[in-house]
Amino acid sequence: MNLKADEIIAWGPQLAKVRWEAIEAYPKRGQLILVSAMSPAPAGEGKTTVAIGLLDALRQRGHSATAALRQPSLGPVFGSKGGATGGGRAQLVPADSINLHCTGDFHAITSAHNLLSAVIDNHLHRGHPKLDGRRILWPRVMDMNDRALRHCLVGLGGPLHGQPREERFEITAASEIMAILALSQDWQDLRRRLGNILVCPGVRAEDLGAAGAMAALLRDAMLPNLVHTLEGNPVLLHCGPFANIAHGTSSLVATRLALSRADYVLQEAGFGADLGGEKFLNIFARELGQAPSLAVVVVTLQGLKYHGASLEEGLLNPLDQLRRLQRLGVPVVAALNPRNGDSPEELGWVRRQLGLHGYEAFLADVYARGGEGALELADYLAQPRPNARLQHPYEPGQPAAEKIAAVACQVYGAEGVDYSAEASAQMAGLPEQPAYICVAKTQYSISDDPSRRGLPGPFRLQVRSLKYASGAGLLVPICGDIQTMPGLSSQANYQHIQLLADGSIEGVH
Amino acid sequence: MNLKADEIIAWGPQLAKVRWEAIEAYPKRGQLILVSAMSPAPAGEGKTTVAIGLLDALRQRGHSATAALRQPSLGPVFGSKGGATGGGRAQLVPADSINLHCTGDFHAITSAHNLLSAVIDNHLHRGHPKLDGRRILWPRVMDMNDRALRHCLVGLGGPLHGQPREERFEITAASEIMAILALSQDWQDLRRRLGNILVCPGVRAEDLGAAGAMAALLRDAMLPNLVHTLEGNPVLLHCGPFANIAHGTSSLVATRLALSRADYVLQEAGFGADLGGEKFLNIFARELGQAPSLAVVVVTLQGLKYHGASLEEGLLNPLDQLRRLQRLGVPVVAALNPRNGDSPEELGWVRRQLGLHGYEAFLADVYARGGEGALELADYLAQPRPNARLQHPYEPGQPAAEKIAAVACQVYGAEGVDYSAEASAQMAGLPEQPAYICVAKTQYSISDDPSRRGLPGPFRLQVRSLKYASGAGLLVPICGDIQTMPGLSSQANYQHIQLLADGSIEGVH
Amino acid sequence: MNLKADEIIAWGPQLAKVRWEAIEAYPKRGQLILVSAMSPAPAGEGKTTVAIGLLDALRQRGHSATAALRQPSLGPVFGSKGGATGGGRAQLVPADSINLHCTGDFHAITSAHNLLSAVIDNHLHRGHPKLDGRRILWPRVMDMNDRALRHCLVGLGGPLHGQPREERFEITAASEIMAILALSQDWQDLRRRLGNILVCPGVRAEDLGAAGAMAALLRDAMLPNLVHTLEGNPVLLHCGPFANIAHGTSSLVATRLALSRADYVLQEAGFGADLGGEKFLNIFARELGQAPSLAVVVVTLQGLKYHGASLEEGLLNPLDQLRRLQRLGVPVVAALNPRNGDSPEELGWVRRQLGLHGYEAFLADVYARGGEGALELADYLAQPRPNARLQHPYEPGQPAAEKIAAVACQVYGAEGVDYSAEASAQMAGLPEQPAYICVAKTQYSISDDPSRRGLPGPFRLQVRSLKYASGAGLLVPICGDIQTMPGLSSQANYQHIQLLADGSIEGVH
Amino acid sequence: MNLKADEIIAWGPQLAKVRWEAIEAYPKRGQLILVSAMSPAPAGEGKTTVAIGLLDALRQRGHSATAALRQPSLGPVFGSKGGATGGGRAQLVPADSINLHCTGDFHAITSAHNLLSAVIDNHLHRGHPKLDGRRILWPRVMDMNDRALRHCLVGLGGPLHGQPREERFEITAASEIMAILALSQDWQDLRRRLGNILVCPGVRAEDLGAAGAMAALLRDAMLPNLVHTLEGNPVLLHCGPFANIAHGTSSLVATRLALSRADYVLQEAGFGADLGGEKFLNIFARELGQAPSLAVVVVTLQGLKYHGASLEEGLLNPLDQLRRLQRLGVPVVAALNPRNGDSPEELGWVRRQLGLHGYEAFLADVYARGGEGALELADYLAQPRPNARLQHPYEPGQPAAEKIAAVACQVYGAEGVDYSAEASAQMAGLPEQPAYICVAKTQYSISDDPSRRGLPGPFRLQVRSLKYASGAGLLVPICGDIQTMPGLSSQANYQHIQLLADGSIEGVH
Repeated sequence: MNLKADEIIAWGPQLAKVRWEAIEAYPKRGQLILVSAMSPAPAGEGKTTVAIGLLDALRQRGHSATAALRQPSLGPVFGSKGGATGGGRAQLVPADSINLHCTGDFHAITSAHNLLSAVIDNHLHRGHPKLDGRRILWPRVMDMNDRALRHCLVGLGGPLHGQPREERFEITAASEIMAILALSQDWQDLRRRLGNILVCPGVRAEDLGAAGAMAALLRDAMLPNLVHTLEGNPVLLHCGPFANIAHGTSSLVATRLALSRADYVLQEAGFGADLGGEKFLNIFARELGQAPSLAVVVVTLQGLKYHGASLEEGLLNPLDQLRRLQRLGVPVVAALNPRNGDSPEELGWVRRQLGLHGYEAFLADVYARGGEGALELADYLAQPRPNARLQHPYEPGQPAAEKIAAVACQVYGAEGVDYSAEASAQMAGLPEQPAYICVAKTQYSISDDPSRRGLPGPFRLQVRSLKYASGAGLLVPICGDIQTMPGLSSQANYQHIQLLADGSIEGVH
Repeated sequence: MNLKADEIIAWGPQLAKVRWEAIEAYPKRGQLILVSAMSPAPAGEGKTTVAIGLLDALRQRGHSATAALRQPSLGPVFGSKGGATGGGRAQLVPADSINLHCTGDFHAITSAHNLLSAVIDNHLHRGHPKLDGRRILWPRVMDMNDRALRHCLVGLGGPLHGQPREERFEITAASEIMAILALSQDWQDLRRRLGNILVCPGVRAEDLGAAGAMAALLRDAMLPNLVHTLEGNPVLLHCGPFANIAHGTSSLVATRLALSRADYVLQEAGFGADLGGEKFLNIFARELGQAPSLAVVVVTLQGLKYHGASLEEGLLNPLDQLRRLQRLGVPVVAALNPRNGDSPEELGWVRRQLGLHGYEAFLADVYARGGEGALELADYLAQPRPNARLQHPYEPGQPAAEKIAAVACQVYGAEGVDYSAEASAQMAGLPEQPAYICVAKTQYSISDDPSRRGLPGPFRLQVRSLKYASGAGLLVPICGDIQTMPGLSSQANYQHIQLLADGSIEGVH
Repeated sequence: MNLKADEIIAWGPQLAKVRWEAIEAYPKRGQLILVSAMSPAPAGEGKTTVAIGLLDALRQRGHSATAALRQPSLGPVFGSKGGATGGGRAQLVPADSINLHCTGDFHAITSAHNLLSAVIDNHLHRGHPKLDGRRILWPRVMDMNDRALRHCLVGLGGPLHGQPREERFEITAASEIMAILALSQDWQDLRRRLGNILVCPGVRAEDLGAAGAMAALLRDAMLPNLVHTLEGNPVLLHCGPFANIAHGTSSLVATRLALSRADYVLQEAGFGADLGGEKFLNIFARELGQAPSLAVVVVTLQGLKYHGASLEEGLLNPLDQLRRLQRLGVPVVAALNPRNGDSPEELGWVRRQLGLHGYEAFLADVYARGGEGALELADYLAQPRPNARLQHPYEPGQPAAEKIAAVACQVYGAEGVDYSAEASAQMAGLPEQPAYICVAKTQYSISDDPSRRGLPGPFRLQVRSLKYASGAGLLVPICGDIQTMPGLSSQANYQHIQLLADGSIEGVH
Repeated sequence: MNLKADEIIAWGPQLAKVRWEAIEAYPKRGQLILVSAMSPAPAGEGKTTVAIGLLDALRQRGHSATAALRQPSLGPVFGSKGGATGGGRAQLVPADSINLHCTGDFHAITSAHNLLSAVIDNHLHRGHPKLDGRRILWPRVMDMNDRALRHCLVGLGGPLHGQPREERFEITAASEIMAILALSQDWQDLRRRLGNILVCPGVRAEDLGAAGAMAALLRDAMLPNLVHTLEGNPVLLHCGPFANIAHGTSSLVATRLALSRADYVLQEAGFGADLGGEKFLNIFARELGQAPSLAVVVVTLQGLKYHGASLEEGLLNPLDQLRRLQRLGVPVVAALNPRNGDSPEELGWVRRQLGLHGYEAFLADVYARGGEGALELADYLAQPRPNARLQHPYEPGQPAAEKIAAVACQVYGAEGVDYSAEASAQMAGLPEQPAYICVAKTQYSISDDPSRRGLPGPFRLQVRSLKYASGAGLLVPICGDIQTMPGLSSQANYQHIQLLADGSIEGVH
């Protein structure tokens, strides 16, 4: 990846971070290729796996390439979905260290986040003139699937133990600090954004003297992590999972570094093109100052069957997602990610159908075959292309309600937006115009209702509440029943994880 | 420290861990020297500083020496007390990285601890036949001074969001997992102890299928951290602060490693000889299988003045602590830790008085002068001594109440033990005989009442409640008003911490 | 009132109840005259005052007449609105005894209601197989304006003190038992309805063995109270205030008794014709089996000014309410209730305008002049009329959603009904078809938004949640921001109430 | 009872209250006879039954006599213990009306009490400068056995719904207002005492403007209730059950009235002589200004067997209670209350044993035989006696801790008093010297531990917390595990209560 040894800091036996000096040193030069997907089935469409396989394929063809991916969260690792290191022969290694703690970035975010909470409650305990325990906007976080923390009460036990108030925990991936870290240009910008966090109407983190210590906790977390694929190719892993409840991209710093050192940079954005894809183009690309030149949309037979009673019906979903990205201004190509046992006839039929609708489509058989399984698509990606001219549905300066309507109607195809009483009140009380909209909604439907798979038909976006991430510049409309703290299922994966006597770990993937 | 390069794993720019292979490879050979103290004043007596300075002094004299110290907790770093890297010229570097995240061990403990909590609440949500939300023994933890989490309620918000129940958070240092990690012999022992954790009468972590995943999260945290002093001498840093609310020693694995590579191993135990000293001798040394050959008791003028209206009165405290360690079977020596501005006459008077009472005493002027300031004491330490023959006040097989009485009366000098109604009920419901007693009480008095400084006079130990750490084998009588989750003071240190634009950190020490 | 002395039971110095034997003895014979109103201003339109004055006027003219009115609640007595005994010369006496405890009926309802709650929590404490603390439908109640009880948690403090769960208190007037008492035919019907209360999906009061004791507590509360006006005329006072959050009528038993003993029975229904009026006609009259022959709609200049920028605009509200009652099948007449200082020109203008729209209108100057102030209207009322043929917007057998839509669209003129996510889920889980719809919404607008005074313009009814009163046969859609437990204002009336040394009370009216 | 018809106000079909004029009119003239008991067995010793039977017996002998008894609470009526109207042929009638609501006094207390709570929370909601939600001393109350309300949280749900805080409910009988009502001389004194209630350090009910409205709610509740025995003899029933958690006497006004109209006034005080007896003599008699001339101590075979393995051992309890009353200055006599099936031999043995210890003892077979069963004892009571010269263990002006020690050691025979940490802090914060001590402790032991029956042996009184009833002038040390809100048992009586179709009630007794 054209990094010198002294630009890298080892962080445990197989992980590393890149020094800040290496990030600052070079200008951007590469093409950015977005890896997005159709609406997923519960097990996911394999975007990470495809992105890793495509990197391996590009490198097999001798191209200068890398990938910018998102870090795993402990929630899904112990829950049903599993880690975020790809699969089969298209994997990051070592999967266990990456999935469990990586280099500690999420823990740093959790600590910085909860330090601000402790400071808030300390001020409430002592009677701060501007803080009202009933109007605190800042939740606590934990990197865990822990539904019992969604709604809680803290400060009980009498006058020595804080002031009683209602509290909620979110998963660390949904922390505003995750977004701030991913979108900050450098340590100075990070520090400024942390100070700008609104904790209660009229009170910011800066006013409480907490932002410096929060930034100090995040110093190392600002440095991208360097890992590699099974085939030995370099990948930057930094920030950002959960494009359903967060903006869901890896960091701007990692992409900038990658673009400065490689001709092709594959960057994944979470879930379907409606979620991660939209947020990547309208939030991340604008903050980065560079648009992708192409978007790969991952499609699986399993996904088609989940989203339709027949393959024909299921196909309406990826077609809609491909068109959505085109409308936003990006050229697209489809990648069929086959699973063991998929029928070659069905895969062929899907590829032909996509072609009939005007979409190039390639098989990316990377789980079974690694980079070798996607050489045809790699060749397609390696054709020179200009950066796209994005068509943003809203401008940062527009009123918030217009922006939400633009995303709902122009991007999702909703007929309108309904606000709950709580959301209306929150909208009326917004202290300033946030730059971006970052919708929190289900990934299983283009609407906010997970039961409306495939094409959802006519719907109105239901905004349940609003979260204003003033440091990140995001307004988060929380739609439908989506929760910002997941829960463990009854068959969660933690039960299958073991530490053996020799220190090896089983069951983390 | 006689470690080869391939026995060390770099963990960030200036930190490292030692590979397991290096720990297993050699037998113990060194002498263990306990560094303890008189009852402290609020700013502490400087045990860590003295231990570091003595290490530097022993190395200046050409001895093979190292130290086994405890890791810092974010609570005091952001609170009033500050970090745990010594001070002045007797310091560990880099103080900021060590104090803020070190290599992530505390985060791993926090995650493993709270995973078990999430699993418990998931079972309560789904209706586990043996779990009763009103009888859960396992709290949650956070590495933060956060009093508002001491007493809280979780699982609110309706049937989709868990089962309502009362919950408490402790600081991570008080987690049973901290004790398990510090006392485990190896990964297998760790795994077994985690499974043995009692979460509710009749239910253990093993029964919930959570212990394997918890152990996996702690895999790397079992490896001791290697840091060095300003003078470049190696120190093992691993586990264990808060000897008031935890057992408060660094890990057995780190001590074993140190003893196998050095002739002299300095090991600090927290707060006064009544707390960390007693627990070191009765818990840690028994689990380690080796007694120290000597105990250094740190004394300051500031401490004497805090504990008495006059120096004469204040001196009664260190005399009592010295005698306490002698009664437990360890030879002792006093180290006077001077501060800038201390009167030489007073220091001399103290040294003479200690001599008159039969105690050797040396100046350890290490804050100002580094190792050079403690050469005389280093020479004293370097005299060959046999391991002590400890006089344990209780045996693991005795009934719990007898053990508590033995610590209270024989070690502290209490006239008896009073149990609150809650503690009596808990004592009656103990499912098995815990091996060790680990009293949680204030460090500011030999009694449980922080206002009774110096020699407390006649008192009875007030046991407010009991915590049974079945995986660690500890029974924790919580005495007086001590809290297992500290709070932020109004003048807490977080306000003075900054991250500068070049990534350097100010205010962490 | 044609009651014999032995049909009456004295209940304190000036109050009485009527024996059950007196209620059973006679058939109905009288005409029922509904007293309703335009949408009120905050101080109310004086429906009770007008009803009392009209009774006095009818009696002055020599007619056999009585009134069936609703009992006061302590909430408004201590809050801003005051008691419910009329005003000026059209008053019930003794106002203090009536307003404070009357004969204890509300206390009996509170006790019976909370007994069921205590029984539920006792079963939860002991582990009832079908009760889930997160799905309890039955709140607690208190006859108080006490907002801090709206959302609370009970069962805290450990395993001896119940099972923790979220709870809410409603004001006693909103208790389902208030509705049951008002709608029950006799003690047997009361007992049956109490048993039928649904406390949790699948569990009724009968299943918990609580209904018998609840009925016993309500034995005397089933007997109507007999009080009299300042002019000495008899009034039955029994059950039912709060037509915004309850069905809001006095009892069926009281009306039946009144109709059996008088030729004209004035019965008030709370707030505007959209609330109490609609519920009286669609719920109460159907349960009673007799429709009113006429409806009096009270109008005040103050109300017109509250509901419009000009008198012309304000007049649109009573015109709409008059038409609403006509659409429901009842002949109407308007009663202008003047206040001290009202301009005779404006009053005259209103009367003429009502006439121009086809509505008879009379001055009812009863506050200042008693019955004498309303003789003209009394003569109008005394004209013989048949019982109305009501046009019900829904039938008991229709699906619940259709019924709600019928009330919203046909009665209120809404464009449709929106359900919150919570309400939709509750609607889907309804275990059976409730007979009647009893909307809870603001009294200050025909819509559910109190800021939309006068004619609200196009609106959709916002259903926030549903309450199913299975024993009363009511489904209560809770709309907009209405609360079933009021709060004290900062200028509440309790501050002005005094008990003097001679036992007399000041400030209760 | 020498009351004229116009001195009585009918209150429902069979109940009445006495006008204030009748209370004021006459001076005291009668002898006061205290009815107390040995420590009870769970079903009670039948003090009420014996008092009623003795009244009937005195009246059979032609004496001018009446009784002043305590009103029932709904808690025991629906719980295990049942009502408070005596039993068998020594009963008050109508038991159902008396036990269920009587004349509404308890409801008035509940309302007045909770009005103050609503006012406090209204001020907290709006930000009162001197109120701190964590330091509110005033609980809420409900007349119900409802353990789930012991520890709760109110004010949840956001900024419109109050300020979150921890709250507790007590049963109405434990309300300070019950004590105030029972101890007030007249309405003026009542009003003054209400204003003096301390709701938070530095804030009294008067400061919140609530005392006038509270007094108004209690106007009628100040008037004693007049009921009669099955044999037709008059009884005053007013205030006061629960001598374990309250002071537990009927009202001073009722006793004053009774003493002015009868020569012999029997007054019951709850549970054993250690509880109700002590409080009657040290609190009530001092406030009344008249001591009893004699105390009857009720003894049952069942009680003896509950309190001892043998009759001999059981007998130690009543002997101790008799001596206790003697030490307090009152002459005593024992009344054996036989149950159906009691062995005449055993009864005879007990009588003889009491005689051998110097105590007169009589059979009071009133359950089976009414007044006729206790004529012998009635004759004994009717002997003229002077008022006793009481020996108070403490004087109102002594420090609180001395008073508590005096009751514990001199009255109970404890070896000393232990305060919990909470109680010590409360004692230190007492704003003024309360006049009287009113211990809350179990009735089943002379100690605070219900398992120590009979003679408890050496013990120290364990004070868990303190309640300061500043309006009543009482300091309430809450001892052992006693709860001020009872819970329903699994076999509670509510299940056996029915309302029949004719309005009659079954199962209330």
